[in-house]
Amino acid sequence: MIPTITAFKASPDHGKGQARDMRVRWALEEVGQPYDVRLVSFSEMKEAAHRALHPFGQIPTYEEGGLALFESGAIVLHIARNHPGLLPQGADAQARAVMWMFAALNTVEPTVVEREQVRYTECDKPWYEARLPLLDERVRARLRELSDCLGEAEWLDGAFSAGDLMMVMVLRRVGMGLLEEFPNLCAYVARGEARPAFMRAYEAQAAVFKAASKEE
Amino acid sequence: MIPTITAFKASPDHGKGQARDMRVRWALEEVGQPYDVRLVSFSEMKEAAHRALHPFGQIPTYEEGGLALFESGAIVLHIARNHPGLLPQGADAQARAVMWMFAALNTVEPTVVEREQVRYTECDKPWYEARLPLLDERVRARLRELSDCLGEAEWLDGAFSAGDLMMVMVLRRVGMGLLEEFPNLCAYVARGEARPAFMRAYEAQAAVFKAASKEE
Repeated sequence: MIPTITAFKASPDHGKGQARDMRVRWALEEVGQPYDVRLVSFSEMKEAAHRALHPFGQIPTYEEGGLALFESGAIVLHIARNHPGLLPQGADAQARAVMWMFAALNTVEPTVVEREQVRYTECDKPWYEARLPLLDERVRARLRELSDCLGEAEWLDGAFSAGDLMMVMVLRRVGMGLLEEFPNLCAYVARGEARPAFMRAYEAQAAVFKAASKEE
Repeated sequence: MIPTITAFKASPDHGKGQARDMRVRWALEEVGQPYDVRLVSFSEMKEAAHRALHPFGQIPTYEEGGLALFESGAIVLHIARNHPGLLPQGADAQARAVMWMFAALNTVEPTVVEREQVRYTECDKPWYEARLPLLDERVRARLRELSDCLGEAEWLDGAFSAGDLMMVMVLRRVGMGLLEEFPNLCAYVARGEARPAFMRAYEAQAAVFKAASKEE
């Protein structure tokens, strides 16, 4: 059965693969699972029909037979558990790969998103400029710890896993000069982006943005 | 084999069960797994010995034979996968329970932590008071969506699961009048707190704080 995911009809990142459907697309490409995409507009995301799938009115969602999921972490883990290619052999190594997924989403990403979102939500506030260095420092502290832990390793724990997929996706959102302070993290992200599955997923989501731009 | 977890030697919440070891204690109590606790001070958390277990220098960690994990979400999921009692029967229902764990940690908790932490990190800033309503509104938006989704149900998806455990723990951190705007979420948290396993875990972590207070 081919699963169906949802993605932005008009992604706010202009097709740069920052939206969370990219994580699911990449996971599906890694395991060689074809998928369908249903595009939703910002207003459709907040309507009852979409909220029945995603109570928080966001993308992505994942439907496969009678199963409907939201949360990119849960969807990627579901894909990883049901196809070879995203989790290592052995129960302990699998638990560590899952640990890195949670670390990406619960320890690193909140600082990254907080720093990114003030650019939209608080850029008109008198404190906006003065707070930016605080937000940079919160992200930097996490990046420093992650950089120390990764060292010169290729991936976070042995072979590439769903934990690396999620961490690379979170680090790709850092941008704005900060990631560049940590050359090993930049190289780590570049290794992720060089994977054929990443590139196929990237092209697929970029094509949505290009098609939407032509329609306008 | 009895696992060993780490917890704060002196919890900043004064034994109110807000630190993340409480999630792991509760999960272990739900499945009836005894455990040992190693207490770490704030300075020990940032030293190399602890960072070898937890690269971000936090608690809890979980050690069991040759396996060492950090991230409360990963630890709770590991416990849930290896003992009956925290995940439902059936692959689809299990995927949905895991989905609620990620929703608690990646969609709800970041807004809760952001609102809580400014009280420590930015209370001396000139913008502190003016920003509080913005932070309240971010939490409120998530709580409203969660409240609509839960409705009058007892738990998020059928029987109590690791997803509820994590969501209840995140909601317990909201406090400060906001959760009270959503009576069904208050009742949901109260149902979690009334579980015997929760109460045993709560007493165990509170005892650490009480013992530390006597020593001073």
